[in-house]
Amino acid sequence: MRINRHFLELKDSYLFRRIAQEVAAYKSANPTADLVRLGIGDVTQPLAPAVVDAMAQASRELGVRETFRGYDDGGVGYDFLRSAIARYYAARGVAVSDDEIIVSDGAKSDLGNILDIFADDSLALIPDPVYPAYVDTNVMSGRRVAYVEGSERNDFLPAPQDVPDGVTPDVIYICSPNNPTGAVYTRDGLKAWVDYANAVGAVILFDAAYEAFVQDETLPRSIFEIDGARTCAIEICTLSKIGGFTGVRCGYTIVPRELTDADGNALLALWRRRQTTKFNGVSYVTQRGAEAVFSDDGLAQCRANISYYLENARIIGGALQSLAIPYRGGTNSPYIWFTVPNGDSWAYFDRLLREKHIVGTPGAGFGQRGEGYMRLTAFGQRDKVEEAAKRLTDN
Amino acid sequence: MRINRHFLELKDSYLFRRIAQEVAAYKSANPTADLVRLGIGDVTQPLAPAVVDAMAQASRELGVRETFRGYDDGGVGYDFLRSAIARYYAARGVAVSDDEIIVSDGAKSDLGNILDIFADDSLALIPDPVYPAYVDTNVMSGRRVAYVEGSERNDFLPAPQDVPDGVTPDVIYICSPNNPTGAVYTRDGLKAWVDYANAVGAVILFDAAYEAFVQDETLPRSIFEIDGARTCAIEICTLSKIGGFTGVRCGYTIVPRELTDADGNALLALWRRRQTTKFNGVSYVTQRGAEAVFSDDGLAQCRANISYYLENARIIGGALQSLAIPYRGGTNSPYIWFTVPNGDSWAYFDRLLREKHIVGTPGAGFGQRGEGYMRLTAFGQRDKVEEAAKRLTDN
Repeated sequence: MRINRHFLELKDSYLFRRIAQEVAAYKSANPTADLVRLGIGDVTQPLAPAVVDAMAQASRELGVRETFRGYDDGGVGYDFLRSAIARYYAARGVAVSDDEIIVSDGAKSDLGNILDIFADDSLALIPDPVYPAYVDTNVMSGRRVAYVEGSERNDFLPAPQDVPDGVTPDVIYICSPNNPTGAVYTRDGLKAWVDYANAVGAVILFDAAYEAFVQDETLPRSIFEIDGARTCAIEICTLSKIGGFTGVRCGYTIVPRELTDADGNALLALWRRRQTTKFNGVSYVTQRGAEAVFSDDGLAQCRANISYYLENARIIGGALQSLAIPYRGGTNSPYIWFTVPNGDSWAYFDRLLREKHIVGTPGAGFGQRGEGYMRLTAFGQRDKVEEAAKRLTDN
Repeated sequence: MRINRHFLELKDSYLFRRIAQEVAAYKSANPTADLVRLGIGDVTQPLAPAVVDAMAQASRELGVRETFRGYDDGGVGYDFLRSAIARYYAARGVAVSDDEIIVSDGAKSDLGNILDIFADDSLALIPDPVYPAYVDTNVMSGRRVAYVEGSERNDFLPAPQDVPDGVTPDVIYICSPNNPTGAVYTRDGLKAWVDYANAVGAVILFDAAYEAFVQDETLPRSIFEIDGARTCAIEICTLSKIGGFTGVRCGYTIVPRELTDADGNALLALWRRRQTTKFNGVSYVTQRGAEAVFSDDGLAQCRANISYYLENARIIGGALQSLAIPYRGGTNSPYIWFTVPNGDSWAYFDRLLREKHIVGTPGAGFGQRGEGYMRLTAFGQRDKVEEAAKRLTDN
């Protein structure tokens, strides 16, 4: 057989696996080290009580013939969940219809799999630095990638005028609030991208994974808050952060009906076809848990968790501030992004691990322009975060 | 943007969606019709008590900080589940190691996504008739497809000598027990394919979804029961049938370490990389439920469900027999496959729906060679199955 040789072009192993391996090796050599893990963006707060109750109840329903459920028809998500998501958007004035929402097991899956519906020779425009899976999934399928630079010059919010000369993208990735920099686009900032995408005929893949962290009401949480987005944008979101669902697995993708190629082929129909052919839906138990996230009680409980993480971010930020280390993020985002000494982020990762027993994520893992920076996450438990802050400021 | 135009080459909509639409239309025009659904291969028995208990317990664990779990490290499945699966194989003398097992949300996902690791211009050899997603996923990605014919001549068990002249496949699909025909390969039958695949350097994708239905101990339930399979085969399986997990979503793929391309690239590493980059693991709740399927209590309870469905198959088979309609399957398989009058399976589907209020699946939906046949499934509830048998035999 012949393998897909594009896999051999991938750099090292996937960032977070590499970090896990390096940490495991250190831990194995230093078994007594009490590590504080502020590396991977994984949550630590337990699920909201409303969610747990819904999931335990759904599990029991599946054990009774009268309430048993098999395949979620078509695998696009139960009506009860799709309408709960639509209401979550409607509550902030964003109109999306249930049938434009396709439920999945998570944003990472959708961000990778959505490429199936685009031509093989599509050109992806990807911010640098950014969540590394965007690049890896394009490289894996042999697609061309161009980068648009995020840096202090543009506050890590690249704009259409930063697109390199000669590059006309087919697909544009935007992640706001940004992973890893914590930067958040303003409405005007997103409007510029929407106008650009409509002008060049590109599709924006808007990764809204961190929308629940936006506290400043003047900042957009959905691309569909922006006029013109329905003809150029797909929004991909997850319950991993709002609901603490990293281990429960639920996300969704919104494809507006108006979004078509030049021949009028609807991307919604293509994505639906992709999913119904290569996916079979999300666990009923997970979908009932997800529905509960968007209930009044669930949202209140989930928002308390978001506040908890934002307080963590404030504590980490305070430690950096007291060391006079400039940082970004942490206010409308769970991520703190700061400059490392000597510009070598893997060296600083090692130093932080060895000297402070703190696990961070080296900026270089997010792209060439991430070199020189470090990402810390606010998803830890409070006592661990406080311990990390203490270790950072102790000499 | 430019879409993947291969999607436009797909026939109609996905088979089971089309059936659902036709049934919904009939039901809407005839609201009082009491339909018996023997079409889609969805289970109806509730989950085993051991599974329900494990899932409710896992849900509660996620609501407590000390037992909360986030990302399943790497997204390949928890150790507890991978070792339970390895033990399930070991119990019938098949040695697979935990790290060769990659857990997923289902066989349909893996069967579609596994193509990512093969070259774009791979040639897939696909039985006709067979589960239609094999063809659709290849067409979607623009891969070439050749068919190997199943018919009464070879008891719907195509052999290497049936491969058309001039065809040298890269990827060979085998589904045994077969969907839709119910045919099951013998060890010798599979050995012939293993020898062929090793000789031509092809990979067998062995779909073992229905293995739990095999009652005849002389018949193989895993490709890895066959000498030589570890250098040429990948096995994809699901808990949908053994555990009734169609709504819970769990499957797994086994890639032996010895399976490499000519340059020594291990397919296990490629598949692991694909999954860790484009997937983030299966719900912890689902994985605990899956572990319970493979416990002693769970297996006993699940096997009682399998026996229930096999008794359904016997009842449907008995009705066909009394009508002197020859059929296949139903003994080591949940599917019954029989010849329809006049050779037009969609016409017979309509007739069965209108005259008997029974939903079947037209053989033509499984490929050109499926035309002239009908598939009924044994996954219904007993009273419905008995009602269907009565309607079939009533004049």
